[in-house]
Amino acid sequence: MPGIVTITTDFGDIYPGVMKGVIACISAHVRTIDITNAIPAGDIRQGAFILQYASLSFPRGTVHLAVVDPGVGSSRRALVILGEEYCFVGPDNGLLLPAARAQGQFRAYEITDLEFYRKAVSPVFHGRDVFAPAAAMIAAGESVPGLREIFDPVDLDFGTSALTEDGIRGQVIYVDPFGNVITNIGGDVIGGLLFLGDTVEINGASATYVTTYHDGGAGDLLLLKGSHGMAEIAINGDRASEYTGLGAGDDILISVKDRHPAGR
Amino acid sequence: MPGIVTITTDFGDIYPGVMKGVIACISAHVRTIDITNAIPAGDIRQGAFILQYASLSFPRGTVHLAVVDPGVGSSRRALVILGEEYCFVGPDNGLLLPAARAQGQFRAYEITDLEFYRKAVSPVFHGRDVFAPAAAMIAAGESVPGLREIFDPVDLDFGTSALTEDGIRGQVIYVDPFGNVITNIGGDVIGGLLFLGDTVEINGASATYVTTYHDGGAGDLLLLKGSHGMAEIAINGDRASEYTGLGAGDDILISVKDRHPAGR
Amino acid sequence: MPGIVTITTDFGDIYPGVMKGVIACISAHVRTIDITNAIPAGDIRQGAFILQYASLSFPRGTVHLAVVDPGVGSSRRALVILGEEYCFVGPDNGLLLPAARAQGQFRAYEITDLEFYRKAVSPVFHGRDVFAPAAAMIAAGESVPGLREIFDPVDLDFGTSALTEDGIRGQVIYVDPFGNVITNIGGDVIGGLLFLGDTVEINGASATYVTTYHDGGAGDLLLLKGSHGMAEIAINGDRASEYTGLGAGDDILISVKDRHPAGR
Repeated sequence: MPGIVTITTDFGDIYPGVMKGVIACISAHVRTIDITNAIPAGDIRQGAFILQYASLSFPRGTVHLAVVDPGVGSSRRALVILGEEYCFVGPDNGLLLPAARAQGQFRAYEITDLEFYRKAVSPVFHGRDVFAPAAAMIAAGESVPGLREIFDPVDLDFGTSALTEDGIRGQVIYVDPFGNVITNIGGDVIGGLLFLGDTVEINGASATYVTTYHDGGAGDLLLLKGSHGMAEIAINGDRASEYTGLGAGDDILISVKDRHPAGR
Repeated sequence: MPGIVTITTDFGDIYPGVMKGVIACISAHVRTIDITNAIPAGDIRQGAFILQYASLSFPRGTVHLAVVDPGVGSSRRALVILGEEYCFVGPDNGLLLPAARAQGQFRAYEITDLEFYRKAVSPVFHGRDVFAPAAAMIAAGESVPGLREIFDPVDLDFGTSALTEDGIRGQVIYVDPFGNVITNIGGDVIGGLLFLGDTVEINGASATYVTTYHDGGAGDLLLLKGSHGMAEIAINGDRASEYTGLGAGDDILISVKDRHPAGR
Repeated sequence: MPGIVTITTDFGDIYPGVMKGVIACISAHVRTIDITNAIPAGDIRQGAFILQYASLSFPRGTVHLAVVDPGVGSSRRALVILGEEYCFVGPDNGLLLPAARAQGQFRAYEITDLEFYRKAVSPVFHGRDVFAPAAAMIAAGESVPGLREIFDPVDLDFGTSALTEDGIRGQVIYVDPFGNVITNIGGDVIGGLLFLGDTVEINGASATYVTTYHDGGAGDLLLLKGSHGMAEIAINGDRASEYTGLGAGDDILISVKDRHPAGR
């Protein structure tokens, strides 16, 4: 148990610091590490992708606290997920599920008594009054009282890509801070179909299948396997998202145009 | 003494990291936690509100380092405030006072020798050369040499709301990262006057008094008690600040329009 | 050896958290401190200046991990620099050299085996798979296997200012978060030529040579020695970068206009 709590939220600023104060009240030894506090407000799907991607880099036993919670104060349940590798704490709206699945087996629990830590729970800030205390207690080796196993946590997935006659169809999951466009098409899927140097069309725009950003000239549209393991659309030294106009949720069609003469 | 120093500044970037380096030089055991480094440049009033709000979530003994300091290098004094619960370090411009009052009794001290840690004090970065060293030394259990008690620290308050014939008059203190508009009207004040479901007018715009954001439909203007304990104007899933045009310092008039038939 | 790893990148968000996860996997005791993750994408020169400036505030033995790496996955080498005071880890593109020089003597080493920590090194994220593991191992007191000393690391400097008949010629290195314009002209150079209160022209605009921001009235253009030790162009309470239109790389000419009658 390394005593680490990671933080993934759409809070922007200030509220993450408040949660860290609560965590420090519960244990002086638990460390907090921000994954991000810049998920677009209420964007559960993007939060779920970031959490799935980033959580896997942390040591076994890490507690991942994630709060993108447009339904705060409603009847949506508060979740603790205990997995083989990690623990996850946050709202029951799908945010935690892809990450939980990615790490292996898990069980899901509802926090039945929201007042387990603080009597005056704010109906608009469960991050401070429910989720941060639960994450801190688990990271400190304590148990959260009133957990009840549930078998129907709200699920979420990033859709599936499909190989069609026209090419590979998929969707944009995320635009990263460099403007790289990450899709739900597995990097191994494109790797199995394309040879390095092949020219493809992405929604009609010509791109080259490469290994790294600098394999293209300045301004060239590139397709590669990103560090997330997914097919990624990029431009060497520029923002592919602005050039292509692609954003999260947009449909993608990748079709082979010209095979590179040398093959792979 | 938990050895935590929190950081609240208008520095944006880089300069907070520099202060953390100085703190690490003084003690390897003191931990730093950012509350925010995104206070608008020179906005002492907003810094004071954030500090008052966020500081109270930290464990007893925490040292709150706050630097919003447009008068750096002038004759404004450098302050250490020792309170019942917390210590505060920063410029004598009102920034620390609301937070100090909120935590209980306190005494204020001037740092009379600015060169107590470093001979070459930069006249434009007391955060690095004066305040961070003082905060680190206190968090490490050392005393800051040359402290002199003062009885007239610069004060600041957020004004008072008033119950008038037209309704409750107050002011906006802060717009949070979600665009929620936080006022200086106590949440208990509106709670004593309104029933859940009542329709009010806020500067002429119709709003409903509710408990949580999702109690309104998408786009509905809402009035509720925020996690800060203050009356807060919000929109479910949107930025109330943009819809209403309200920003820090603006006057607010909340008047009852229609009583909810069921009462509370 | 204090076990601190600082982080300086152009990653923006998420990727720094991923690197911190990797570091935590290697050692539970190494602490990470962000200097900045907001270097403009690919701007090696700005990254080098920030690293040089901020690194010097940290305790002896700190490992400075810096990744502004437009050439990731290319043949550019991966560097470890062991210096008198600090260690630096990052790409061999000039990013580390000014900071290494600023701290004293140093030796440079290439990481010859990029797979020393992880077999599946992503060709687009050496920060996660190469640099973070190397920094963590050094901070934990372990050695990085396969280091080979090199004598030709890529260099970078910020140019030299020159005293000409027209005045002091130099360049803008950096615009800080307050809009202050930091130049490559040493603060001591202007200090040796000017008296406090002198009026100068900066690219034709009139400015006063002062000690601190508040020495000017609101809106007055000021020249002073900044906390970086360099000549800095500022406006009391406003953004000098916007008023002057100056940005990183722009040429500067500072000429004396009127000597202050009282001299210094």
